[in-house]
Amino acid sequence: MQGTVLYGPRDVRFEERDAPKIMKPADAIIRIAATCVCGSDLWPYRGIQPISQPTPMGHEYCGIVEEIGSAVKTVKPGQFVIGSFCISDNTCPNCRAGYQSGCQNLAFMSGAQAPLLRVPFADGTLVATPDLPSKDIIPSLLATSDVLGTGWFAADAANVKPGSAVVVVGDGAVGLLGVLSAKVMGAERIIAMSRHEKRQQLAQEFGATDIVTERGEDGVARIKELTSGIGADSVLECVGTQESMMQAIQSTRPGGSIGYVGVPHGGELDTQQLFFRLVHLHGGPAPVRRYLPELIKLVWNRKINPGRVFDLTLPLNQVAEGYRAMDERRAIKALLHP
Amino acid sequence: MQGTVLYGPRDVRFEERDAPKIMKPADAIIRIAATCVCGSDLWPYRGIQPISQPTPMGHEYCGIVEEIGSAVKTVKPGQFVIGSFCISDNTCPNCRAGYQSGCQNLAFMSGAQAPLLRVPFADGTLVATPDLPSKDIIPSLLATSDVLGTGWFAADAANVKPGSAVVVVGDGAVGLLGVLSAKVMGAERIIAMSRHEKRQQLAQEFGATDIVTERGEDGVARIKELTSGIGADSVLECVGTQESMMQAIQSTRPGGSIGYVGVPHGGELDTQQLFFRLVHLHGGPAPVRRYLPELIKLVWNRKINPGRVFDLTLPLNQVAEGYRAMDERRAIKALLHP
Repeated sequence: MQGTVLYGPRDVRFEERDAPKIMKPADAIIRIAATCVCGSDLWPYRGIQPISQPTPMGHEYCGIVEEIGSAVKTVKPGQFVIGSFCISDNTCPNCRAGYQSGCQNLAFMSGAQAPLLRVPFADGTLVATPDLPSKDIIPSLLATSDVLGTGWFAADAANVKPGSAVVVVGDGAVGLLGVLSAKVMGAERIIAMSRHEKRQQLAQEFGATDIVTERGEDGVARIKELTSGIGADSVLECVGTQESMMQAIQSTRPGGSIGYVGVPHGGELDTQQLFFRLVHLHGGPAPVRRYLPELIKLVWNRKINPGRVFDLTLPLNQVAEGYRAMDERRAIKALLHP
Repeated sequence: MQGTVLYGPRDVRFEERDAPKIMKPADAIIRIAATCVCGSDLWPYRGIQPISQPTPMGHEYCGIVEEIGSAVKTVKPGQFVIGSFCISDNTCPNCRAGYQSGCQNLAFMSGAQAPLLRVPFADGTLVATPDLPSKDIIPSLLATSDVLGTGWFAADAANVKPGSAVVVVGDGAVGLLGVLSAKVMGAERIIAMSRHEKRQQLAQEFGATDIVTERGEDGVARIKELTSGIGADSVLECVGTQESMMQAIQSTRPGGSIGYVGVPHGGELDTQQLFFRLVHLHGGPAPVRRYLPELIKLVWNRKINPGRVFDLTLPLNQVAEGYRAMDERRAIKALLHP
């Protein structure tokens, strides 16, 4: 088969690779129905997070189970499944506590930008849909695998409740789906920080009530104006830079909560600032497996349409163009069909 | 009157000062029954947090109301009162949310190591006891003003619940009262990190079930041994150094919570480490005013005896010896009688 491999900065290739095989009894092989390029794929693509060797790319996936190992019990060939970007056994104490992204057998998925994918700990990682899905909801089902699950975790970690005043820092696909998540959780005011018209429009479609284009101190001042002078109850940090984290900390009211899901790139946090702001901070790699059953149900029943973040659809062999379009911010998120 | 003034590193003087007077309608003047030296007083005393001018010291206090301004409604002359080290109006949105230490009129108390003290926003800062207290519980009432209130906030911020496995980093008075707080909140296992025999004993008296003397990686390994290999549900960080914060982060299970109350001295936090540990982080200057009614009641009904942390009692004019004894770790905490 042919799959996607990153060789170095901006050098992504679609090339011949060995097809995956069952290697352990808990494995499954799935035939990918749709995959996509993640914002976090851009860190190594841009060379900010260097790679030491050619690296198979892709960790967002859904498709049909092709084959299972002898120990797999909860999914079977022919089923349509979605899996988390975190491989988890779903039985260890951390998984049972709802933190599958801290599983004692944790591994991060890679190689999903290909027609076939091996999924270790298939029982603990995959969730099957009630039936084979109609084609039109496949993008939204794919979104649950990471980008929606991560936006949802940001909102949950930021303690969004009915009536909350929420700020979303970051207008990438995760931030936009953070807006959608906050809306589903009942937020009353959802302030999206964005300077891009197309993303602003999608944020509003997903439930944003206000758009703030200012950043830094001006952005904080604008948010205080919109939140009775005190700051937001909940702030979703969906970027991962020091600047965006400080934006989040300063936009939260004392006692409010920040859910942060942007993989940190760019250093350290000023603990004195954090201390005196009295905020709650929670985040990390999203425990998507915890949320998958609920999110799949919302998509299946057509309550939400997170697949709207895919504004570019390409055949898988044009994966390099997907990376380029996202790198240049021409596309919010690129969906790939094998 | 004579009061305590810090002039520079290790130069604390008890000298003539003007007696405080009512300056604003919301002020009260109280005659101090007991005050004490705080671990946070040692930062400027040691020169780690430099002062720019001679500074009146002391922010923990209880005593009898001597005089009130015309706007004061909830306390009256002759009542015994305890106040928070944070001056708060207790009416702004942040106060109403329970974050009086983030009050829109916040100021930090100083000058309490003296016979008389002016308390601004008396209605929002002070809480009266049901009656004049008997002498033996005055140390415990004094403790609610900061050191117990702060240990209590650490436990609350760390989400201690009945049955929790708790670690307390720091064996100063706040850490020891964090142990007591976790016990009152129903923690099942309370692991105190301490190398000092006297402090270990007091930790055990307050409810510690285990003592860990190791630090760094060895300390983390020992805590994992005691917590099913995954780390504690709740960790109280009661020191404020980078080292102690990393100890806390690495000792918490994924999804667990850190309550941190040590004023940060020593820089920044590695956000990558924090991210992948999936912990909840909450802390800051404790909103003691929120807890005062409850804590006073526990002391008044002799359910707890936090005054046990005072292992040195001095007349106020020997305040310099109180600082010295705490600086040299000869005393856990020094109580001062005017």
